[in-house]
Amino acid sequence: MHQATYTGDRTVLVRRCDPVPPAAGQVRIDVAYTGICGTDLHVLHGAMAARVRPPAVLGHEMSGRIAELGAGVTGWRVGEHVTVMPTVTCGRCPACAAGHTHLCHHLGFLGIDSEGAMQNSWTVPADLLVRLPDGLRLDHGALVEPTAVAVHDVRRSGLAAGERAAVVGGGPIGVLIALVARRAGADVLVVEPDAHRRSVAERLGLVCLDPSAADVVAEVGARTGGAGAEVVFEVSGAADGVTTAVGCLGVRGRLVLVAIHAVPRAVDLHRFFWRELTLVGARLYLREDFEEAARLLAAGDLPVDALVSRIEPLARADAALAALDSGGGAMKVLIDCRPATGTEQA
Amino acid sequence: MHQATYTGDRTVLVRRCDPVPPAAGQVRIDVAYTGICGTDLHVLHGAMAARVRPPAVLGHEMSGRIAELGAGVTGWRVGEHVTVMPTVTCGRCPACAAGHTHLCHHLGFLGIDSEGAMQNSWTVPADLLVRLPDGLRLDHGALVEPTAVAVHDVRRSGLAAGERAAVVGGGPIGVLIALVARRAGADVLVVEPDAHRRSVAERLGLVCLDPSAADVVAEVGARTGGAGAEVVFEVSGAADGVTTAVGCLGVRGRLVLVAIHAVPRAVDLHRFFWRELTLVGARLYLREDFEEAARLLAAGDLPVDALVSRIEPLARADAALAALDSGGGAMKVLIDCRPATGTEQA
Repeated sequence: MHQATYTGDRTVLVRRCDPVPPAAGQVRIDVAYTGICGTDLHVLHGAMAARVRPPAVLGHEMSGRIAELGAGVTGWRVGEHVTVMPTVTCGRCPACAAGHTHLCHHLGFLGIDSEGAMQNSWTVPADLLVRLPDGLRLDHGALVEPTAVAVHDVRRSGLAAGERAAVVGGGPIGVLIALVARRAGADVLVVEPDAHRRSVAERLGLVCLDPSAADVVAEVGARTGGAGAEVVFEVSGAADGVTTAVGCLGVRGRLVLVAIHAVPRAVDLHRFFWRELTLVGARLYLREDFEEAARLLAAGDLPVDALVSRIEPLARADAALAALDSGGGAMKVLIDCRPATGTEQA
Repeated sequence: MHQATYTGDRTVLVRRCDPVPPAAGQVRIDVAYTGICGTDLHVLHGAMAARVRPPAVLGHEMSGRIAELGAGVTGWRVGEHVTVMPTVTCGRCPACAAGHTHLCHHLGFLGIDSEGAMQNSWTVPADLLVRLPDGLRLDHGALVEPTAVAVHDVRRSGLAAGERAAVVGGGPIGVLIALVARRAGADVLVVEPDAHRRSVAERLGLVCLDPSAADVVAEVGARTGGAGAEVVFEVSGAADGVTTAVGCLGVRGRLVLVAIHAVPRAVDLHRFFWRELTLVGARLYLREDFEEAARLLAAGDLPVDALVSRIEPLARADAALAALDSGGGAMKVLIDCRPATGTEQA
């Protein structure tokens, strides 16, 4: 088998290695597809050097088939289609004790803190498996993880049918949030400066605004009869994105903070006071979000085909990461991790 | 009769005038006590020149007796003890339409946008009256308005019995929030740099921390077994107060933004994401908050006597405002607006 290994200095090498036999409580998965996430690009840039020590196998958005069960694993059988919830929790910290396991003070994340899915075969704890429903294509199965993020974000917003929502930032997560929010009955607007991303979102039937060409706050005001939006998702990670998001909200509006802001941002707290706005942080997902994401994708409720810009074989993982990193022209890129794609012969 | 009139340039003059007969739908109130609010001091400083045009009668925290009913006023009788909800709403904007009348886009505020209560006699719309329960002293009745702010803030926090709360800023509103939160069963800590304010809060049995002498975030961590507080109220209006408040919160903690921050503040949004914190703006009150505040005060559930630093006659309103403005040594100052205090002879 082969695995794509981050060796430091922005480099990924595809190397031959042996499958890891599953220990007690583990399963080995024949990986089908692994998606490339923005976090993987951060790792490549060395921005997560404190957590990721090369050599490291990246990847935490995946689908596959169970290949082998370790001792004591019940409730699963070889051949089943699965994805993996990549969060490992301690079960003892105040967050775990309160049931917020995804906010565990000592959270481990597969593909960052331990080996990820960008390889033919991946061995993981069985309790992280999530079953893929019948009829869900394996390429779509690799989208369950980012879709679970979107499901969690929409859940955190308390969005109700008929509400007006804006999504600031139209990358893969922003578009998935917009699709999940629209499915929940919201009237959704996507704010995104990149023309290619807007074109993808528009192909999915989403209304888009270019913040470099339009006054987004005025436009949202006009579309809502002066009331402002009920919900805004901040997915851009940019300082201007926060300002736009706060400006779009009507009285008692909810701002869901999805993006990572590495530095403190200037926030108009007076507007939070004046309009009694709410800011809600949203991070990762719980199992119920994963399961809901899988259900939505299996039912065809989210037209995600247009989100996948291309699928590259594992042998080309390095080139795929580099191309995505150079930006422009791509939304979600999947790595086909099946040996049939040619790496096994190498 | 007399009224204390803000004439601009930090000056308040007590002047003789005639009572205003109540028009249809109005009542005339013999004012008993009027509290001085921080907003009144802002007006004195000229900071609200866009809304307050001298000459203006300030004051929106009051108690009194109904003296006269205008035509068509039913449900009230002369002599009843009342306070006044000083918010005038348009009834037509998106906020009013959504039932958030206190966030009315065209909100008028008695004592700012129109004549206030710092006078012997005040004529107001009858639909703003709130009945004071039997047994509620009239000096305490003047505290219903700021207590309603505190009740609203605690309601917005969703505070549950047994939760750990911190109040950043121990002025009159901060202390009232702490008292209401304690009454709701919370374990409350007050963070306040001013020694006098801390001494008042401590006389009320509240645990206080001086942020200039203690590491508040570390202290809250130690008191909560590393979990952090469930709720923090930011009442300081200071940049450091925001940082402290955010730092004290545990996973899924709620920060209630009570203070006015006139300029944008640097906010650690990463922590909001990482711990899934919530920021909730809280402004003014609804009628239910006023009525709950009156009930709590009438039942003696809030030991507010220590909050009233002194009571001055209307004739000395100017000196009382100036003394409070100079800071130190005073929490809440009430103006005794009854003619018996001597102004009527002038």
